[in-house]
Amino acid sequence: MGVVHIVGAGPGDPELITVKGLKLLREADCVLYDRLVPMRLLDEVGAGAELIYVGKEPGGIGPSQDEINKMLLNCALRRNVVVRLHGGDPLVFGRGFEECRFLASRGIKCFIVPGITAGLAAPAKYYIPPVLRGVASSVALVTGREAASKGRRFVDFKALAKAVDTIIVYMGASSAGEIAEELIAGGLGGDTPAAVITKAYMSDESLRVASLRDLGVAESPSIIVVGSVVEEGLRLYEMLKP
Amino acid sequence: MGVVHIVGAGPGDPELITVKGLKLLREADCVLYDRLVPMRLLDEVGAGAELIYVGKEPGGIGPSQDEINKMLLNCALRRNVVVRLHGGDPLVFGRGFEECRFLASRGIKCFIVPGITAGLAAPAKYYIPPVLRGVASSVALVTGREAASKGRRFVDFKALAKAVDTIIVYMGASSAGEIAEELIAGGLGGDTPAAVITKAYMSDESLRVASLRDLGVAESPSIIVVGSVVEEGLRLYEMLKP
Repeated sequence: MGVVHIVGAGPGDPELITVKGLKLLREADCVLYDRLVPMRLLDEVGAGAELIYVGKEPGGIGPSQDEINKMLLNCALRRNVVVRLHGGDPLVFGRGFEECRFLASRGIKCFIVPGITAGLAAPAKYYIPPVLRGVASSVALVTGREAASKGRRFVDFKALAKAVDTIIVYMGASSAGEIAEELIAGGLGGDTPAAVITKAYMSDESLRVASLRDLGVAESPSIIVVGSVVEEGLRLYEMLKP
Repeated sequence: MGVVHIVGAGPGDPELITVKGLKLLREADCVLYDRLVPMRLLDEVGAGAELIYVGKEPGGIGPSQDEINKMLLNCALRRNVVVRLHGGDPLVFGRGFEECRFLASRGIKCFIVPGITAGLAAPAKYYIPPVLRGVASSVALVTGREAASKGRRFVDFKALAKAVDTIIVYMGASSAGEIAEELIAGGLGGDTPAAVITKAYMSDESLRVASLRDLGVAESPSIIVVGSVVEEGLRLYEMLKP
């Protein structure tokens, strides 16, 4: 019976996986991977290993979480070292926890290997710090997805507006305008700076800067950053950009 | 004139640095390092390179940030590849941004290489997810330090209590009890589960679990996690622990 490592691949640059994550990829007999992992990492997987794509395309096409869980179990029963490769960090708006819980309930040993989460790394690409002494002492990482997909909101953006200095939204591309409205209703100024970072660390990455009131919609996948740190970061980016 | 890479070493396990970070350490002519970086990483630095300790001991003994900035500048003027190695991520409650801004203002090229921040990786060691579908859709990363050192609080814990599902406090060891009181005053139940993770990924790491009302003080350096995810994670940890 094998062991499963739930590994974070990091934000998109193949060199931003951890040393441990890369080592496990090279040792694995079986790798199940997401849509948003850097494809160049798959070249590191050994020739004899199984490589199984379990990504979900936009629109939800692809295996369900139940199906992925069963594929993981199946690999663990047949192979020694199984790697489940997630984009970013497996526990930050990933399904690593659910997968690990399922495997544990079937008696399979399972380890979490953290990765750098996109919500913190994407802004760093543009020198935007999530927190900054004298400017921001707190940052919230939240999902924007539930707004669109479930008809109700689990994240209270109105309350967030005044509770933290920086707000970083994952999967908020399609509901960016709606989120901005709620943040303004919660007390943030319409001129609060925001940055939309799309496909960070990929060849076609892009940055859009807007005030909160002009945020509009964004292309997917994007990370949205709201707060004074955006201005501070972009000033430095202007000085240093290639 | 050299280039400075501001590199995150990750949370303490030497294998949790990124591939890029390790590569730069091996290439560096000059490395300035913090107190909380994994010491085994320093073995990776080349024999001809300068290795400069700039850590601050508890109590504030060590070079000031101004002095560190000047040492970085001095290295960049004499050497080709300078690495400034931070524990965790250089932009998440580190001083990477300030250092980069100082260097840029002196005409030095400066890059940020993200690391895994301790606030997310320390809980992962115990299978505690910062967010979890159906349980927590938002997490705040905040500093607990300002409470003690400045006599006033920049983080509004009362407002945070109701605005996010999970709260992760950095540098909150000495003010943990005070923070817990404010969270309760803000509306969190006294029985809300909390975890204190001390020296994660080091040989003497430890975990303490308490309800919010019994949080008390913690040993430094610690990461404090407050919210229902603590219970979910520890249930899985009990199933999987060695």
